[in-house]
Amino acid sequence: MSEQTPSIAERIDASTQVLRHGRSTERTVFFSDAVFAIAMTLLVLDLRVDLPANPSVEEINQAMVEKVPAFASFLLSFVLVGVNWVNHHRRFKGIKSYDARLQNFNLLFLFFVAFMPVPTSLLFANAGSPWPVVLYAVVVSGISLSLNLIWWHAHRAGLMDKMVSEALYRYSLYATAPVWGIFLLSIPFAFVGSGLALYLWILILPASVIQHRVLRRRFVRRETARFEAEDAAAAQTAE
Amino acid sequence: MSEQTPSIAERIDASTQVLRHGRSTERTVFFSDAVFAIAMTLLVLDLRVDLPANPSVEEINQAMVEKVPAFASFLLSFVLVGVNWVNHHRRFKGIKSYDARLQNFNLLFLFFVAFMPVPTSLLFANAGSPWPVVLYAVVVSGISLSLNLIWWHAHRAGLMDKMVSEALYRYSLYATAPVWGIFLLSIPFAFVGSGLALYLWILILPASVIQHRVLRRRFVRRETARFEAEDAAAAQTAE
Amino acid sequence: MSEQTPSIAERIDASTQVLRHGRSTERTVFFSDAVFAIAMTLLVLDLRVDLPANPSVEEINQAMVEKVPAFASFLLSFVLVGVNWVNHHRRFKGIKSYDARLQNFNLLFLFFVAFMPVPTSLLFANAGSPWPVVLYAVVVSGISLSLNLIWWHAHRAGLMDKMVSEALYRYSLYATAPVWGIFLLSIPFAFVGSGLALYLWILILPASVIQHRVLRRRFVRRETARFEAEDAAAAQTAE
Amino acid sequence: MSEQTPSIAERIDASTQVLRHGRSTERTVFFSDAVFAIAMTLLVLDLRVDLPANPSVEEINQAMVEKVPAFASFLLSFVLVGVNWVNHHRRFKGIKSYDARLQNFNLLFLFFVAFMPVPTSLLFANAGSPWPVVLYAVVVSGISLSLNLIWWHAHRAGLMDKMVSEALYRYSLYATAPVWGIFLLSIPFAFVGSGLALYLWILILPASVIQHRVLRRRFVRRETARFEAEDAAAAQTAE
Repeated sequence: MSEQTPSIAERIDASTQVLRHGRSTERTVFFSDAVFAIAMTLLVLDLRVDLPANPSVEEINQAMVEKVPAFASFLLSFVLVGVNWVNHHRRFKGIKSYDARLQNFNLLFLFFVAFMPVPTSLLFANAGSPWPVVLYAVVVSGISLSLNLIWWHAHRAGLMDKMVSEALYRYSLYATAPVWGIFLLSIPFAFVGSGLALYLWILILPASVIQHRVLRRRFVRRETARFEAEDAAAAQTAE
Repeated sequence: MSEQTPSIAERIDASTQVLRHGRSTERTVFFSDAVFAIAMTLLVLDLRVDLPANPSVEEINQAMVEKVPAFASFLLSFVLVGVNWVNHHRRFKGIKSYDARLQNFNLLFLFFVAFMPVPTSLLFANAGSPWPVVLYAVVVSGISLSLNLIWWHAHRAGLMDKMVSEALYRYSLYATAPVWGIFLLSIPFAFVGSGLALYLWILILPASVIQHRVLRRRFVRRETARFEAEDAAAAQTAE
Repeated sequence: MSEQTPSIAERIDASTQVLRHGRSTERTVFFSDAVFAIAMTLLVLDLRVDLPANPSVEEINQAMVEKVPAFASFLLSFVLVGVNWVNHHRRFKGIKSYDARLQNFNLLFLFFVAFMPVPTSLLFANAGSPWPVVLYAVVVSGISLSLNLIWWHAHRAGLMDKMVSEALYRYSLYATAPVWGIFLLSIPFAFVGSGLALYLWILILPASVIQHRVLRRRFVRRETARFEAEDAAAAQTAE
Repeated sequence: MSEQTPSIAERIDASTQVLRHGRSTERTVFFSDAVFAIAMTLLVLDLRVDLPANPSVEEINQAMVEKVPAFASFLLSFVLVGVNWVNHHRRFKGIKSYDARLQNFNLLFLFFVAFMPVPTSLLFANAGSPWPVVLYAVVVSGISLSLNLIWWHAHRAGLMDKMVSEALYRYSLYATAPVWGIFLLSIPFAFVGSGLALYLWILILPASVIQHRVLRRRFVRRETARFEAEDAAAAQTAE
């Protein structure tokens, strides 16, 4: 028996993991895409106009006008879910393998995505109640934070592709902070006035611009240091 | 004509099977994922709040509170379907080819998955009737048992990857027994009191922990024996 | 300029076809699977029980009993669509490339699949009207016949894998004849009595058994002739 | 340090793009397909007939007849979305990589696709109101124009496969002009009479035939010039 042979304990461990870990996230990714696609399309169900049997011109126009707030909340949710699809796509381009925990975190993420039609249908139906706004803010933050949980776990558990540098990992981790930060922050404001919370959400746009600049500067600093160190090492080897 | 040439009967048999058997389960798996994704997302439809035309703050809050039981049953179903997605993913990581029977069993499995929104919407709407609880228990057990049927058939028909050891096959086969066992067991209790059956379901958690320990011990014993036999054989060859 | 160079007309023709034809049906297949998955899951929407606000035990039991006919038609449709998924899977295992016409025929096929929830929800709601039965029969035959159209076109246009023999092509083409045949045949009977048409559908089972035997015999005869000819040719070459 | 080593600025730039750009559009394409599949299947929801508890033969027949206009608009939308699926399939056969902008444009495209069930359910319910017609025309043009945006960007940003010639790119870009052109043109006519706009849509068929001929002639001219130039260059090299 050669010394390279792993011990029986090691081999038992490997056998245990055969079905739990894997090197391809393809199925996880396509399953997630299907959930995304359905959540984005179900959002539309609230927009379908219920007309009386033989509607007059007035009734049709009226019914369409009444759907304008529902359309606004559909549009907001479509953009938010769409941005998260792009983020999920980018993160999973960097994640190359999975373990049991990654899949659980991804299911948590998909829970929030699948749930989006519920707060969306309530959002602009509110007449001053803070709860629709609170629910919406909780679900949107839940999407962003659970995606960060996936990203953080993949980094810690060594599931990441080598091409994702430490600096890029951090950049991605903090890039969505203005989104979940301001949504969480708006929750107490919703109890002061639900309209107030909605106005607060507009701050996400300037906050994202500022955050991007800060993160970009740090990213360039960290990558510069890394590449300079690499070049120095290469120069030393070449001598 | 060389002697290796298969007989005409064998060649006819092979030709018959050309479209029925295959070495890639990819399409079966993605189709299953789409059914999973839709079933999980449709669960949400019951949670959408129907509001009157110009709802007051009271009406909105009231409508949201009334959805709490529906939310509880949505959450339970999302977790159960999610766990089964992970199980389906793991089992099909071990299954490398398919035949006609495997696809029929998988369709049976998908039938139960697709059906989940129906018992879910009834579960907490019940006012003492045992039938919603019975239906829920039957469907959840049906998911687990039909997945076992797939697993058992794949093993028996030689569709399994070689990396799935006998011990691992058995471990997976019996791992979900506490789930379908307790759900089936709760059916007679539902007729005594539908609340009683629900409390019984909580036992799934401790039962799974105990089952895991028992199965793990057996798994380690079987794998140890296998690896020791392998090492002994290798040692003999080396002499 | 070598003589092998294709003429300018040929090269223009090839350039025209660059985006229209292809050697992988993967995307067509996955798109079809998504439509299948949604159609099969939407069938369930009719089964969701609408309960009053605080239902009594009686009301719940009553509401569940009332869904039994809807469940029967759901079950029938799930089986029919499931069988067609398996057929689509088998046929597209034999089809290796696509052209513009194949995709149009596949869209026609998907039209019937996507439409299935409509006749399904009507089927057992009928009180003697022939039209729900007629609609159901038309849609189910439409699925089978359009799948045959795909199969026939793929054969004629050279899109088939070489492993699909002439005998296997014919076997598959005629295998579903009892399904669409009896559904089409039941249409005039529906006007005599809609129940009569439903009983006629039961004939699909024995008709399929008989059809299978007849087709199997022809298949064996054709393949035997082919393999004998091959062996004779091989023997001649060996001499 | 060799001279081929890219500068630190170049390496930072490459690192920034690691998760944003990619060489496979597979996930984007499958996600799009899922949205297509759901949109096409949700169209069917409007066709489901709501029957009273114990419908008479008359009531069933009546309910089915009332769905004929809804069926007509379903059919029109199914054909339009189906044609766009084929177009998306063809275009993405030519697009080989993606960047952040391509994904945003694709989300815009999917927004219009997912939204289709809304104008479809309104289209033939109108009693002279121009707005359902206008909404329908805007959404259908939106699908075509956003697909052109994807195509134009992919060409400009070098995401295209080399096999897509300049002539083929232009052919595809202008091929859908009769569709979006006539839909946009019909918008002012809808205010004159909503029926008038619908009749105008029929012009899409002859306009497409004419457009095809014009584009085809230009395509042949451009490709002939290209191949003649190639042959001349090859002849010169051979001398």
